[in-house]
Amino acid sequence: MTKDLNRDYLEAGFSCRLGFGRYPVLLMVDFIEAYFIKTSPLYAKPESVAAIAGKVLAAARDNKVPVIFTRVVYDETGINGGVFIRKIKALRSLVEGSQHVQIARGLTPRPDELVITKQYASAFFGTSLASTLNVMGVDNALICGLTTSGCVRASAVDAIQLGFIPTVIADAVGDRDVRPHEANLFDLSMKYADVIDSRDAIKYLRKRNLATARQ
Amino acid sequence: MTKDLNRDYLEAGFSCRLGFGRYPVLLMVDFIEAYFIKTSPLYAKPESVAAIAGKVLAAARDNKVPVIFTRVVYDETGINGGVFIRKIKALRSLVEGSQHVQIARGLTPRPDELVITKQYASAFFGTSLASTLNVMGVDNALICGLTTSGCVRASAVDAIQLGFIPTVIADAVGDRDVRPHEANLFDLSMKYADVIDSRDAIKYLRKRNLATARQ
Amino acid sequence: MTKDLNRDYLEAGFSCRLGFGRYPVLLMVDFIEAYFIKTSPLYAKPESVAAIAGKVLAAARDNKVPVIFTRVVYDETGINGGVFIRKIKALRSLVEGSQHVQIARGLTPRPDELVITKQYASAFFGTSLASTLNVMGVDNALICGLTTSGCVRASAVDAIQLGFIPTVIADAVGDRDVRPHEANLFDLSMKYADVIDSRDAIKYLRKRNLATARQ
Amino acid sequence: MTKDLNRDYLEAGFSCRLGFGRYPVLLMVDFIEAYFIKTSPLYAKPESVAAIAGKVLAAARDNKVPVIFTRVVYDETGINGGVFIRKIKALRSLVEGSQHVQIARGLTPRPDELVITKQYASAFFGTSLASTLNVMGVDNALICGLTTSGCVRASAVDAIQLGFIPTVIADAVGDRDVRPHEANLFDLSMKYADVIDSRDAIKYLRKRNLATARQ
Repeated sequence: MTKDLNRDYLEAGFSCRLGFGRYPVLLMVDFIEAYFIKTSPLYAKPESVAAIAGKVLAAARDNKVPVIFTRVVYDETGINGGVFIRKIKALRSLVEGSQHVQIARGLTPRPDELVITKQYASAFFGTSLASTLNVMGVDNALICGLTTSGCVRASAVDAIQLGFIPTVIADAVGDRDVRPHEANLFDLSMKYADVIDSRDAIKYLRKRNLATARQ
Repeated sequence: MTKDLNRDYLEAGFSCRLGFGRYPVLLMVDFIEAYFIKTSPLYAKPESVAAIAGKVLAAARDNKVPVIFTRVVYDETGINGGVFIRKIKALRSLVEGSQHVQIARGLTPRPDELVITKQYASAFFGTSLASTLNVMGVDNALICGLTTSGCVRASAVDAIQLGFIPTVIADAVGDRDVRPHEANLFDLSMKYADVIDSRDAIKYLRKRNLATARQ
Repeated sequence: MTKDLNRDYLEAGFSCRLGFGRYPVLLMVDFIEAYFIKTSPLYAKPESVAAIAGKVLAAARDNKVPVIFTRVVYDETGINGGVFIRKIKALRSLVEGSQHVQIARGLTPRPDELVITKQYASAFFGTSLASTLNVMGVDNALICGLTTSGCVRASAVDAIQLGFIPTVIADAVGDRDVRPHEANLFDLSMKYADVIDSRDAIKYLRKRNLATARQ
Repeated sequence: MTKDLNRDYLEAGFSCRLGFGRYPVLLMVDFIEAYFIKTSPLYAKPESVAAIAGKVLAAARDNKVPVIFTRVVYDETGINGGVFIRKIKALRSLVEGSQHVQIARGLTPRPDELVITKQYASAFFGTSLASTLNVMGVDNALICGLTTSGCVRASAVDAIQLGFIPTVIADAVGDRDVRPHEANLFDLSMKYADVIDSRDAIKYLRKRNLATARQ
């Protein structure tokens, strides 16, 4: 979006900086093979985004910041995909056992990292993620993932609604096209999240060394 | 968004038409004075959108389709605005008793129409709206309101996640700028909702004559 | 509870009969091996309850009433068990891969029946069950399962809160002791659910022959 | 419940002590006139419970522990009471403007204390309470209120599900009869909450002096 639009929003009192919280989590949203396989209808050119997210992931692990992954998986009947998989029929390949729902190589979760299975756009919808973050004492979700206009935005909106600070890492989230990617980063930065780049995220993570979170 | 982008999404299996449901509700999202008062930081040039939404509202009432309104209201301390009113400080004027939280003239709810008070973007978040729609037997939410990139989109995303068909009425939703308005209608139409115009909505409502919903 | 207590509640306007809905689902709550294995700390003498629930299950299947099962499963780290598995340390054995989280023989789900994995007491908490019931057009949840004072009650309370009619089948739900079993059936019948016996449930199911639910 | 039952649960790994958290809130559940007015069908003999809750309230205020109140209020049409007010028709008097929904004298909220309006049993259901507690940095909800078998229990169950430690103050919660009161305190203490008496609660509150919570 152009400069005049930024100015209009800023002058009206949007886009205040939230800052980092005390106890961050790194949320790796939907880095599933369906977005990586070139013949998949969901292919989202995620290669550079995944490479950058991999660096953020390494920085989180090196500094003992907890990491949580999400995947989208539907029942074979599709009944738990509801209206959503009627709207986006491309989602119907996301069935347990399929390669499409595996987390992409290079971003594989470690055995002690939680992997959340969800059916909808938001990582918080129909999952116990909010409870888990609460119990961990987390107040800030750093978000990498796919796609900016889909599960990343929906997760960031729910994060702020639930009382967590969402920090979206602009170059570690991606979409099938740069236009919705940028339009959604604009909305996110104005209304729902701090939007930062991976260099600042990694710098922040290096300053953390969380042996344990609140509890 | 341009034609190539539409084609790319359509060919990949996005944007399937959901059609109308059996029992619609008309959801009038956040037509509050804060968006109508020219000196308000939230002023969103809503005049023509409100006029069109008024026609949709009349068609719903004339044909016994139930109508539900939402407002945003915070406690005087702001504590129930959480991180959201830290991100958008313009929201802090939305305090009970203020003119800003009244529903705009011309769109006033009738005594038998439910008005839901919320604190966050989605009409479903932190409210019992989903329960009410369930009990009414509603399976389809026709959505008018403000703003497209804010509460309208968040409500539509939650509607589809919750199992309701969201039908966004393009010319009866509006935003402070046409660019986020259009970018969000694009995302909504591709992933989360049927996007129609008010003429088709009114035509549909005229065909309904719901004495009572499911229960 | 004794007769005087029933009378007191009834005269005050509690315990109104809800009746069956139009589209029922059979909810089979937590019939997992942990309650069946005699050496398990969670062993709940479920044999006769499971036998009766098996008859209800057969009646549902024979009459095309959809069936949904729930299981409780925690991550190996236990992090997604939150405060709940700190309160009940007996739950910590409920880890994927363990025999304890398998659904008991005789009640095995069919491939087309949805099995929901949850972490907390209510079948609706942290799951997309409400969305699925909505999309199926369900307005009534017939509930069998374990335990009456635990996941059965919590699920019934959430069902009524969400706008579904909960119908608890008294002899197809059970607990580790008859006292909390009966005390909870009393509360349920007075405030949250119709409580019926399996004969009436099976009679009702035989009258149904739902080829398809609402959608 | 008798000693043998306590022993059975304890030996099986129920009823572990959670302890207090770092940042408590005092939750005053549904101390509304409907329970205090002797001619009300909901009258629950709350006089001594309210007197004790008043002492806990004073201790919280004196020691800067934040306090949140809840009320139950329905729309005049009752549509937002859903199935719940069909089950308990005594709830239908809880309409805005009625004396029944006012918080009882002696427990009146201060202007800076949040009052949450709800429609269902749990203080968290259909409200933004969880978000508010998150943002306040609260990890522990001390619970007083009415009734033990109703809104108190439902709120405590949701609290533990959401990741907050529920601490139920046994002599500051009450019910229309001692039998469901005691049966529910048993379930709560075994599975969902620490159950303490008001002396220990007040002792704990006196040790706190929270100028501010987490944020």
